[in-house]
Amino acid sequence: MKLRHLLQTLALLGAASSAGAQEGGIIHDAEYYVLKKQNAAVWAENDAKVDQMLAEFRDRNGGKPPNIFYILIDDMGFGDMGMPEMNAIRGYSTPNINDLADESMRFARMYTEPSCTPSRVAFMTGRQPHRNGMGDTAVDISGFGLADEEVTLAEVLKSVGYNTSHVGKWHMGDIQESWPTYQGFDYAAFPIHQQGQLAIFNKDAAKEEITMAIGEENYNSKYTLDGWFRPDPGHMITGLEATIGSEVREVHMEPGEEWTQQKYNEMNIRYQAQALEQLRDLAGKEEPFFLQYWPLVPLSTTRTTQEAFTTPNGGTFVESMEELDEWIGVILDEVEALGLEDNTLIVLMGDNGHFTKYAPGSGFSPLVFRGGKADTSEGGVRVDAFARLPSLIEGGSIVSDIIHIADLFTSIARMADATDAIPRDRIIDGVDQTSLMMLGDTNGRRDHVMIYSINSLKAVVKEHIKLNVPAKGENAIVAKFFNLFRDPREETSVSTEIGAWGGHEFNRIIARHLKFKKMYPDLPPAYGRPYQGIANLRPETVAAVDAFVAKRDISPD
Amino acid sequence: MKLRHLLQTLALLGAASSAGAQEGGIIHDAEYYVLKKQNAAVWAENDAKVDQMLAEFRDRNGGKPPNIFYILIDDMGFGDMGMPEMNAIRGYSTPNINDLADESMRFARMYTEPSCTPSRVAFMTGRQPHRNGMGDTAVDISGFGLADEEVTLAEVLKSVGYNTSHVGKWHMGDIQESWPTYQGFDYAAFPIHQQGQLAIFNKDAAKEEITMAIGEENYNSKYTLDGWFRPDPGHMITGLEATIGSEVREVHMEPGEEWTQQKYNEMNIRYQAQALEQLRDLAGKEEPFFLQYWPLVPLSTTRTTQEAFTTPNGGTFVESMEELDEWIGVILDEVEALGLEDNTLIVLMGDNGHFTKYAPGSGFSPLVFRGGKADTSEGGVRVDAFARLPSLIEGGSIVSDIIHIADLFTSIARMADATDAIPRDRIIDGVDQTSLMMLGDTNGRRDHVMIYSINSLKAVVKEHIKLNVPAKGENAIVAKFFNLFRDPREETSVSTEIGAWGGHEFNRIIARHLKFKKMYPDLPPAYGRPYQGIANLRPETVAAVDAFVAKRDISPD
Repeated sequence: MKLRHLLQTLALLGAASSAGAQEGGIIHDAEYYVLKKQNAAVWAENDAKVDQMLAEFRDRNGGKPPNIFYILIDDMGFGDMGMPEMNAIRGYSTPNINDLADESMRFARMYTEPSCTPSRVAFMTGRQPHRNGMGDTAVDISGFGLADEEVTLAEVLKSVGYNTSHVGKWHMGDIQESWPTYQGFDYAAFPIHQQGQLAIFNKDAAKEEITMAIGEENYNSKYTLDGWFRPDPGHMITGLEATIGSEVREVHMEPGEEWTQQKYNEMNIRYQAQALEQLRDLAGKEEPFFLQYWPLVPLSTTRTTQEAFTTPNGGTFVESMEELDEWIGVILDEVEALGLEDNTLIVLMGDNGHFTKYAPGSGFSPLVFRGGKADTSEGGVRVDAFARLPSLIEGGSIVSDIIHIADLFTSIARMADATDAIPRDRIIDGVDQTSLMMLGDTNGRRDHVMIYSINSLKAVVKEHIKLNVPAKGENAIVAKFFNLFRDPREETSVSTEIGAWGGHEFNRIIARHLKFKKMYPDLPPAYGRPYQGIANLRPETVAAVDAFVAKRDISPD
Repeated sequence: MKLRHLLQTLALLGAASSAGAQEGGIIHDAEYYVLKKQNAAVWAENDAKVDQMLAEFRDRNGGKPPNIFYILIDDMGFGDMGMPEMNAIRGYSTPNINDLADESMRFARMYTEPSCTPSRVAFMTGRQPHRNGMGDTAVDISGFGLADEEVTLAEVLKSVGYNTSHVGKWHMGDIQESWPTYQGFDYAAFPIHQQGQLAIFNKDAAKEEITMAIGEENYNSKYTLDGWFRPDPGHMITGLEATIGSEVREVHMEPGEEWTQQKYNEMNIRYQAQALEQLRDLAGKEEPFFLQYWPLVPLSTTRTTQEAFTTPNGGTFVESMEELDEWIGVILDEVEALGLEDNTLIVLMGDNGHFTKYAPGSGFSPLVFRGGKADTSEGGVRVDAFARLPSLIEGGSIVSDIIHIADLFTSIARMADATDAIPRDRIIDGVDQTSLMMLGDTNGRRDHVMIYSINSLKAVVKEHIKLNVPAKGENAIVAKFFNLFRDPREETSVSTEIGAWGGHEFNRIIARHLKFKKMYPDLPPAYGRPYQGIANLRPETVAAVDAFVAKRDISPD
């Protein structure tokens, strides 16, 4: 932790001399200031309009800013949700999500990070996860997570009086400081890991050989010397529940109990019920609320518990998708029944492209864009995203400005009148896109995205031009550029057209980005002993952690 | 022509013993009868409903069946039209077409042939063009075309009293018997060739090097010995006009005049005006009408005459697409102004996938499906298709049954109460899909498509399973199968799952198809002297034909 603090201090020293200080003190990445220098007058004008609209909203809403309801669907790329024509191509139907999409602003260029953990971190902190060591996605016991020093949207909103709840997938670390009730949530029900463990590391999945050599149901271990090699199904922590300030407990797992597909299904049904319960509970309170529902569905890998088929596609994810859509329908009906439609911002989106490793069996495979989860092609980082708030956001509109999931952090903070709570001592990648959301197409404040894979910058998008970052020493003139409007699948490099100019201009974009990184260096994640702080650890879970720690600390005798 | 007649006679002999005779005498391909044996009772029930609905329609409409307005957009695959989200991905907008799509039944699985000529022939004759020698697409003087013996939809509708007009692209031959006023149209304004000539074989396109070595504007011909090798821009026939029974004349081209991009643009503007004029004229008549508007736009290859850019994409086709959309808007407004909305079936669709040879410069590139025009992958043969007729077809619906462009022939004939005029002496590939169009999703009568490239069967779709037809002698067990719901881009062959069963079952499907082909053999196209019958041939055009004939008849001295 010492290195972390040292870097933080260096960052603070850097901040003092930053050009970003005038942005109400929020420090953005370099490219933002290039745009600001050219658009400051229009932005100021639009900011006044946005402020006026937000003030009018609060006047209509008993002095309160809107509730925030954020629904994040796992592994859903662009075209998977919200377009009945595309549903029809794949052979499934999500009428409730499609209806919501119709009532919403649709973002045609919503970028996420290429995987679950980094996307969720970007939303929660407004920072691309290379900045806080959270670019990687662990599916096993790993002993790292989101650092306490990171300021989450829950903390930002809580500081202005919001009640905050999280239900469902979390996946930002297996150490205590990373968990929701230590990161600004009053209440949380969440699995400590994700579907890699929950829907694959069990005997049912092993029997169906969803992945090879996990569990002992699909091979004979007679040559095994290393009993610590494989994750032990059911020995990892499953679902936790907590309220802020009280202890965190594992639920619905007894010592010695086996983790099964059935238990995974029960967990999903439980989260749906808890999301509804939280919604009702929060709606009954005086203060505005911030509710996150991050379902684990549709990632259901086995067919074990699948009964009736509802789609001609029949893929396990696609079948679950229809179930999820029913659930979302129930949630949206409840929003209406509770009278929350007019004062609740609902954002529903995917967190990254679908997981092509399970294609075509899952029923999903690359469709509109090339690639999927973990790729830095558009298929990995462009997702369906819908925002609904009838009086402030134009329903049925489609915007083509670039927006990044981190922008939601800053934009939601502003809509909640909580911009002051955004930290001023570090780079916030999320730019304020309230003018896009409230004034519509072409009012965005971002014309670029830095696309990272873990801690490596892999691609840069500026307007509709995308550069695949060349290897060191490669001549920029022959760098691979793609025109995303004319070639959305990035199949035909147009470097000969723009390499000579673009190669060098993009080099300068990257250089500015790196200069800012030097002022505000990337931090590692927080490290710690996994699971510490869970009140009711099972004996087998303690053994699994001991094995992890022993391996981590291994040294010659 | 003698061979043709002989084959026709053989076909007639075959018909007498055919199992198809009971289908009101219409002879379909083999697979239809497999379905009919299993679904006859439901079909009969639905047929009664359809008949009732059509009778009620005629009662409401002064005893008349609906007008038919068929708008066929050139080189438009699935996702190019009708979905604003997909427009946004590409960076353009077609609001008028999208509105029409919203008011229409959308076909998620509309199959065409892989290229212009065969798709248009399939629509016009209800027959896949391998049956009448029209599978190939000529862009030069070629001396063949749609045979007089073929019975077109215009002839079918004319026989029950429809007035019939054609405006725009025709592209079914450069010999007289192929032309619209010899194929059932009362009036026609049409270019004899297509955009390969009209938008590329000119000096403007040569200067921009849209294609290499056409014209003399992009190379020096000092090594040229064969002056007959290249098509001579402007020496081919351009736009023709005719009314039935009177002579066919070339218009807006004087002897010695040069064909330019400007003249091509004027031609397009003229067709738009003529389509409107025909619409008004036909609407004023007592009889119902059949109007075809087949624009040449958006295939506009050069930037020569492009003035303001209306899209961030900027590709030449995409820019023209917005212009076309405006034009379609004008047409649809006129339909409304003339009070035709409720009694006119409007079908708007693409004729095959976009032309990937011009990607990404055109602004279009493969997006939802893999491949494009001339490919037998879904990208070549799946298109956007919308059908609107408020009182008979459910607006805003999406159907996922398979339908083929040839089915429109049979279905429109039925809606026009003209089924009796469909010939009974040859295979009609188009099956009656009125139950799908009028009763909705899952009421289709086709679960298969035979996908040909010119005269070769390349792929067979049955349900959502697609087989790429293996080479002779290849073991069916390892044949390439694709699951079109789970893998719409046909990237992951699933032969190991279904090869052993499917390989043989698909072989039997093909065998049945070939058995029927033996009973009703494929015919060649009609051949003749190009341009014969045009009243005002230019001297240079006569010279071009002479050169063509000299080459065709070449022999040793």
